[in-house]
Amino acid sequence: MALVRGHFERSETKMPSPGPGEVVVKAEYFSPDAMNHAWVRGMPGKFDPLAPGTVMRGGVAGAIVKSANPQWPEGTRITGFLDWADYSLSDGTDYMGVPLQIIPEGIDTHSGLVTLGMSGVCAWLGLFHFCHARPGDDILISGASGAIGSIAGQLAPLAGCRPVGIAGGPEKCSAALDAGFDAMVDYKAPDLGDQIAAACPDGVNIFFDNVGGALLDAALVSMAHNGQVLICGGTAHYGAVPTPIYNHIHMAMRSLTMRGFFYFDHVDMWGEARERLTQSLKEGAIREWLDIAEGFDATPDAALAGFSGGVNGRKLVWLD
Amino acid sequence: MALVRGHFERSETKMPSPGPGEVVVKAEYFSPDAMNHAWVRGMPGKFDPLAPGTVMRGGVAGAIVKSANPQWPEGTRITGFLDWADYSLSDGTDYMGVPLQIIPEGIDTHSGLVTLGMSGVCAWLGLFHFCHARPGDDILISGASGAIGSIAGQLAPLAGCRPVGIAGGPEKCSAALDAGFDAMVDYKAPDLGDQIAAACPDGVNIFFDNVGGALLDAALVSMAHNGQVLICGGTAHYGAVPTPIYNHIHMAMRSLTMRGFFYFDHVDMWGEARERLTQSLKEGAIREWLDIAEGFDATPDAALAGFSGGVNGRKLVWLD
Repeated sequence: MALVRGHFERSETKMPSPGPGEVVVKAEYFSPDAMNHAWVRGMPGKFDPLAPGTVMRGGVAGAIVKSANPQWPEGTRITGFLDWADYSLSDGTDYMGVPLQIIPEGIDTHSGLVTLGMSGVCAWLGLFHFCHARPGDDILISGASGAIGSIAGQLAPLAGCRPVGIAGGPEKCSAALDAGFDAMVDYKAPDLGDQIAAACPDGVNIFFDNVGGALLDAALVSMAHNGQVLICGGTAHYGAVPTPIYNHIHMAMRSLTMRGFFYFDHVDMWGEARERLTQSLKEGAIREWLDIAEGFDATPDAALAGFSGGVNGRKLVWLD
Repeated sequence: MALVRGHFERSETKMPSPGPGEVVVKAEYFSPDAMNHAWVRGMPGKFDPLAPGTVMRGGVAGAIVKSANPQWPEGTRITGFLDWADYSLSDGTDYMGVPLQIIPEGIDTHSGLVTLGMSGVCAWLGLFHFCHARPGDDILISGASGAIGSIAGQLAPLAGCRPVGIAGGPEKCSAALDAGFDAMVDYKAPDLGDQIAAACPDGVNIFFDNVGGALLDAALVSMAHNGQVLICGGTAHYGAVPTPIYNHIHMAMRSLTMRGFFYFDHVDMWGEARERLTQSLKEGAIREWLDIAEGFDATPDAALAGFSGGVNGRKLVWLD
């Protein structure tokens, strides 16, 4: 079952009180992402769907406003997967069983959720850990105007690589060029495969894919020999019926490697990624491309927009 | 364009004479395989289709019967991609630009083409070089009654792994069990996914895929975390329209790696593979599962059978 508007309902509850070892987090931002979808549909082998009536959960950035845990003093700014509510109760870990992540001094709260959160860390791990990017590589990035893609596009030049983006429509493509992509492919135009081939005439060395489906299918044909495909996400798969791919025989013909990774399997690498990303943020090498909705009630539409191609940069909800 | 019966025609030519540095090979066996398909359809970025009227080429095992090259004495038994004709002319390399491969003493001529040829070497490279098979792994092998699959199934226990095969129909499944597979999945039965899950209850650690299409799609759902998929071949893709896969989002959800390899990219590793395989043959650890057609005129049907699921073991043509 895909995430739909009817999965959301607003309700009033009391502010929680922390038990021993617990803290109360006041939310300032929510970040809708694929996990909201997973909590509705369930994720085979990982977790069951949330029971109807359960408080929706998701990415949250905020501050600890009450603490019964000396390790987590009041005022600490943190992120984590917590309740999509004004206040969340936590024992220092979030719903994914991961410790709350502290937002470093000098970093904006929303950046803790975006560049130092799942979006930025996925982009960093994908490029620097899983893809073995080498200077001179052409890196094709789908979802280029989205949360992960827009950061991956800015990280690619730091690895000496040339970022080529895929996005839908001339407006998004133009904005991505302004944001630092070297060339853009418009998947809403009819000649997807030809555009990719023209944008990467020597073949795609790395395809950093956040979408899947027809985009992945088209890119497989244009991969360079020994190319690498990173399956970072698959927004094309969040609908009721996933879109198929036909061209995977190119895996053998071009000696390709395709790798998928699940963010929460690599908590041990988050520290290094967050440290490097903090430095890049402070140096101004990464500018966040944000699309901020205002107010608690904007949450459902913001959450759904991420799966409909309606996103320009990182969609966040700001709780005013 | 797929390989069809009409692509074949028999013609008479003279026996060639070797020029300086050249040898004449008398064929004893032909081995139909995916390359025959590629020479009709062409292979993007690798070579163009053969012009109509060109002598069909393919795997050949035979002996040098005339030599004008002191490095290649008469009587040497060799294999290579040569003309599908009684006699081939060669300068010591074959149509793939690779040196003719010498069949070692004590090894049958057909074994030079099968276990020490593309089938055996692909199985060996796939398991021992690309898949990083570890003792205790469950290895699912499609095309289990085919050329590569039947050898991979016998190599898996040498790596301490458990081979589970996929083949079509009770007869082939039963024969594969006799040949050493620990369990079999019948893809012609309606419950493919359930059969795979039942045969590998802890998940598939390695899927050694020679088929693609619906089989790959079903296997993706049953992969173990951090599992590896080897795209060794894709007989499902030799028809006019390749069959699609829908489940590649499992690449990300299960942190899978999918790797394809092209045999001719790894000529540097053939030596080690052939040496180990020669040893296994001499020790009786590998028994060849052969399906031998007799006579030159049997060639077209033999070549087409490999793409229609009509093969039990390695299809060869014996030139009587």
